[in-house]
This record gives sequence, C-alpha cells and structure tokens, in this order.
Amino acid sequence: MKKHAVILGGGMVGAAMAMDLARDADLAVTVVDAREAALERVRSRFGVATRAADLADPSAVRAAVADADVVLGALSSVIGLQTLQAVIEAKKPYVDISFMAEDAREHDALARANGVTAIVDCGVAPGMSNLLAGYANELLSPCEHIDIMVGGLPAERRWPFEYKAGFAPHDVIEEYVRPSRIVESGKIVVKEALSEPEFVDFAGLGTLEAFNTDGLRSLADTLAVPHMRERTLRYPGHIALMRVLRETGFFRKDTVDVGGVKVRPLDLTAALMFPKWTFDEGEADVTVMRVEAIGLKKDAGTSTGQRVRLRWDLFDRYDPATNFRSMSRTTAFPATIVARAVLAGRIKQTGVLPPEKLAGIPGLVDDVFAALKARGVTYTAHETVLS
Amino acid sequence: MKKHAVILGGGMVGAAMAMDLARDADLAVTVVDAREAALERVRSRFGVATRAADLADPSAVRAAVADADVVLGALSSVIGLQTLQAVIEAKKPYVDISFMAEDAREHDALARANGVTAIVDCGVAPGMSNLLAGYANELLSPCEHIDIMVGGLPAERRWPFEYKAGFAPHDVIEEYVRPSRIVESGKIVVKEALSEPEFVDFAGLGTLEAFNTDGLRSLADTLAVPHMRERTLRYPGHIALMRVLRETGFFRKDTVDVGGVKVRPLDLTAALMFPKWTFDEGEADVTVMRVEAIGLKKDAGTSTGQRVRLRWDLFDRYDPATNFRSMSRTTAFPATIVARAVLAGRIKQTGVLPPEKLAGIPGLVDDVFAALKARGVTYTAHETVLS
Repeated sequence: MKKHAVILGGGMVGAAMAMDLARDADLAVTVVDAREAALERVRSRFGVATRAADLADPSAVRAAVADADVVLGALSSVIGLQTLQAVIEAKKPYVDISFMAEDAREHDALARANGVTAIVDCGVAPGMSNLLAGYANELLSPCEHIDIMVGGLPAERRWPFEYKAGFAPHDVIEEYVRPSRIVESGKIVVKEALSEPEFVDFAGLGTLEAFNTDGLRSLADTLAVPHMRERTLRYPGHIALMRVLRETGFFRKDTVDVGGVKVRPLDLTAALMFPKWTFDEGEADVTVMRVEAIGLKKDAGTSTGQRVRLRWDLFDRYDPATNFRSMSRTTAFPATIVARAVLAGRIKQTGVLPPEKLAGIPGLVDDVFAALKARGVTYTAHETVLS
Repeated sequence: MKKHAVILGGGMVGAAMAMDLARDADLAVTVVDAREAALERVRSRFGVATRAADLADPSAVRAAVADADVVLGALSSVIGLQTLQAVIEAKKPYVDISFMAEDAREHDALARANGVTAIVDCGVAPGMSNLLAGYANELLSPCEHIDIMVGGLPAERRWPFEYKAGFAPHDVIEEYVRPSRIVESGKIVVKEALSEPEFVDFAGLGTLEAFNTDGLRSLADTLAVPHMRERTLRYPGHIALMRVLRETGFFRKDTVDVGGVKVRPLDLTAALMFPKWTFDEGEADVTVMRVEAIGLKKDAGTSTGQRVRLRWDLFDRYDPATNFRSMSRTTAFPATIVARAVLAGRIKQTGVLPPEKLAGIPGLVDDVFAALKARGVTYTAHETVLS
C-alpha cells in the first residue's frame, strides 16, 4: 500500500515538494491550501490530490493530516508554530520549512510525549546549513569555527536594489532590522543587523557582500563550537541602501502622524518597494551558500591533530525546464528527501529536531547530498589542510 | 531724513537682511512677520523696528509697506508671487529672494504701469548667478557657454545623506523631481532632474557631484547664449540615494492606499527625512558657487577675437561671529546691496527684473562684488585664454 504524504501549503515551495514527491511511485501525495488556483496548478501539473482548507485554523490542520504517514510544512512563518503544534497533536511525523520567528523547540516536550519526530528549519538555510554545521561538528574534534553565508538573488542585477525576494519580503526586512546573534569565544554576542559588511568572491557570480544576520537560530545552542556566525549575501551596494532606509525610519513599525493620518512607515515602504522586489514570471534566480568549518580532523572517531578547513559550496540556478526558481527547489528538496528518510524509518529520535540533530545518523548526510545532486542541486565539498 | 526699508519675513534670511541694513545710519528698518519670537530676536539683536502681520494676506502686505522707501522680500516661495503683486500695487520698489515656482515676470506689465522697479530672484542662486551670467554676456561677444554650479552644504559630512537643507526641504525635493531646462545650441532642452552627475573638484572642499537642476529660470530666455545650464552641487553619493528614493516612489505626491489609510509618500518621507536634514543650532554650513562663461572677449565694446574662459568662484562659510549660516548671508546680502542701489537711484528701469537685467548698469557689478567682500562674502574672478 502506498504511503501518504500530506503537504501543507501549495505556494512555490509546496508545489516543488509536490513535484518531487509525485515522482515517487510508492507515495500518494495530497496538497492542502485555501487557494483553489494553487491547488488546480499542482493537480494539473503533477497529478497530486488536493484538499481545500484554511490552514490558519489548527483544527483544519489536524483534520487534513489525519491519515498522513508523513506531513510536510510549507506555510507562512506567521502560522509556523501553531501548525507545528497541531501536527504534533495529531501525532504525525513532520518536516517543516516555515522559518517561524519563534523557537520551535518549545513544543519539543509535547513531541516527545506524543512520540512524534518533527524536523523543523529543514530548507536550505536554515536547513542544509544546519545539517552541514552538524556534519562539520561530527568530522572535526574540536570544531573551532563555523561560518555560514547564504543568499538568494536575482540572476540579473537591476538598479536600484539589485535584489528580489525569493520569499516573503516582510521576512527579508525582518532580517535587516533584527539584531543578529553570533557566537564568539563560546559566548553569544549580539550585533546590529546589516553590520560588518565584507566582500566575498564566488566563482561564476563575482563579488558579493556578506553581512551579519540572525541566522544561527538553534545552532547557537545545539553545537558547542566556540566561533559561529551566519551571514547573508547580496550584490554589493544593496546593504548600503538598506542601512540608509533603516536609519531614516522607513522600516519603522510604530505609527507616524502624517498630516493627521497615522501610518506605519514599513507599510508604506512595503507598498512602494516590494513590487520592485517581486520576481517576474520566469525570471531567473540563483542561490549561493557556503558553509566553512575549521578544526582538527577526526579519523575513525579520534582526532588526527591535523588542522583543516572544510568547505561546502552551493551555486544553484533557476530551472527553466520546470519553471521553478532556485530558491523554491533548494528549499523544498531537503524537506522531501528528509521526509523520505522519516518514512524509511531512518530517523528514530522523537522531539522537535533542527537538522543538525540528524548529522550523526550514519550515512544520512551523504545520502542527502546524493539525492539533492540527483535533483540538480549540487553541493561541492572542499578540504584544505591548514597545518 | 532717514529712508525706510521694510523687510517682509523675519526668518534667517530676513534677519540677516535686518542685521545688514541696521548698520546703515541713513536707514530706518522695519521687519514684518507673524511670529513674535522672530520679531523679538531681530529687535533685541539689531535694534530694528518690528510689525506683527500675517503676510499670507496681501492686504496686510500693502499696509505694511505703505510708508516704505524700499521693500525687501524674504518670504516662503509659496506666497512669493502674491506678495510681489501686493508690493507692486502699493507702488513700492521691491527686492525679493523668495524663489517662487511661478515666473515673476507675469507682473512685469503691472510693475511698468505702476512705475515700480521690482528685482526678483535676488539672492545667491538665483541671484548672483544671474548677475554674473548677465555680466559674462556683457564682457563676451559672442558669449557661447554659461555654466552655473551651486550648492549649499553642511560643513561636516555625516552619513547617510551628507546633506542638510539651507532652505525649505520641500523646495529641495522639488529640485530633485522637476525636469530641468537647459539650453543647448540655442534650444531649450528638458533633462530629467538629478541627471548627468559629474564630479567636480573645488579647492578647500574636495570633490563634489554636480547634476542638472531647473535653475536657469529667467536666463533661459533673457540671454541669447546658445549653451547654458545650471547644476546643483552635493557631496558625492547624495544624488545616488535621492535617485533611489525617487525611483522607489518616496517622493510621490499622489496618495497611496496603505492598509485602508491614504497617505502621500512625500509627506511621510518629509516626516522621517527632513528632521535629519535640519541644521543643528550653530552648525556650520558652506556655500559653493562657480559661474563659468566661454566666448570672445570684448574690449571697448568690440570683440578682440580672443577666446577666453571667465570664471567666478564663491566659497563661503558659516560665520560664528554673527551665528548666521552661509546660506542666509550669501542670500541676504545681494538683496540688501541691490536695495541700496535702488535707494541711490542707480536702477532706473521699471518692471519685474531678474538680476541679469542689472548687469549692464555701469559699475554696478563691481560695486556689488566690493560690497559683498566688505561683508565677508568673496567672489574670486579668473580669466583663462583659450586660443
């Protein structure tokens, strides 16, 4: 009998999940969304089942997943946490990419009590970045440094922003205002968002600008690595503009009185700017990620004393064959691949688990890499001996 | 008996006019304004008479100037034209710096009918720029090129705008959106505001950026010079930011619906940005102007055939002794000096006259330069032989 995978959300990422899972003859796939147009698109393109439901309502979530063998979450960050809770209450294994602002692990005890495996932050970053950080921590002893850089960008740079948002623009602005937590000498240090800009070269793409963002999330406490930071990548110049808009107050969320009318500056900024940040139909994007780790290499479980730098690079582009943007594919496929590992019984641990918690499962990381490569998303690994 | 000079407007420029005219033992000076604090300041600092009146009402203007021998205008551009009309109706000679958006010469026939001399645009730019352009046209035959560059800037460059507004910030934004008219090959050509940015070096200040603005005003038709343009100067980078804000829509004057609330983007931008564009008390500013003209030099009324470039440079700074910013002083003094020339009977012509119309009066330009220099505002003249 076929296993049943239920995908919550039929947007771009949910549709890419549906495409991928529908190729699997052993799976029955259902996409759940309130938008009939989204459902019609995945039905006609991928032949999956669909269910109309308002997933902002947790009882609708519980009903939608009632006969699922695995649930995948591709919903807005705003309803990420409540949906996680609903799926755990329904006692279904869950793989989620919703990038919720809250710490999903507040439902860890509930998940363990219910015997549920819930893997959160399971996209590209957070997601593969977590898995690779956890993997580096397995390969090195001690692992001293982890540096994650990631960006989703339009392939063409167009004045003035040289940027389009591969996910919700409000979440992008949130990255530009929320102080970023990084780990220095074993302590969490808070730095201003958009701070410490640095130019970094990427083969095939040229020079990008990296800046601090609050992207470590669970890594800040799951890994005992004394130096860790996560930075976001943009084409040079974008950050300077964003700093000016932020400084001037255009990202403010309080209300300003303008001639007797009260308005939140961010709302007007969104109305004016976000249309310029929207990808055109068929417009190409790229996803760039680099995870670097430094430490002493382990061999057969013991340190060799050899200091190395491990590096993984992702450079992925829009796929014209499927018309899926890179950001959708690189986000969706880690979740579909991990969902299959859940169905295969390879992930025994229960609780709310960020992906770094999976890095110690024998062979899993290599299998994820291979499965991503089979889908055209290729991570290249490099090792440099430092001493 | 003392002559009576009436100054309409007691703001920074009106106050600088009052300071200058009050030093003249032959003059009785009255400053008119609705703001008692402004009146008290000029009374106590300069010992001038004051009169409280709402000058937005033309009948109040006519009453205020009833016994004036000369009237000086230092009012907002918005009421510039109606005030000009009121002074002409009162049959008083007028020297104005209000920078009105309209063409003041629409009241030329009325002024001539009433036998009134009304000199408009009589500050630094418009003002001295017009006088120098007219002067260049007197010195050269033919005068082929006139290039005016002018900027009022804070002495200290501070991120992000490196700019503060020496006059009404709304008028500054108007310069950034209004298409600029320049003269090329004898024809008026319209260029986008903020267009054709170019770096220009100024001794003592470094590199500035010049861009097209709609500053030729009357010069576009009073002088038969085939190539003329007026450009504004800013510290490099400011214009790039302003282009981005304009492109994004932050200078729009139509209303945008933001979550059910209608707001004009420019109004919010003004609320957020203009406070950052306001000079602090005692903060130093600089005024930079360069007027260049190319043509064949005249001598005793005939062309010598020698091609020359004439250049006049102004580089003026905030005056800590009087606590008047450079922009106030460089704007006020041309008007007070020309007002004295009016009182002395040196300007016979009636009508509404931009300053280039005064350039042919024998000795006047030299006298204006000398009087400005005596007030610490020094224009330096250069001549370069080109062939």
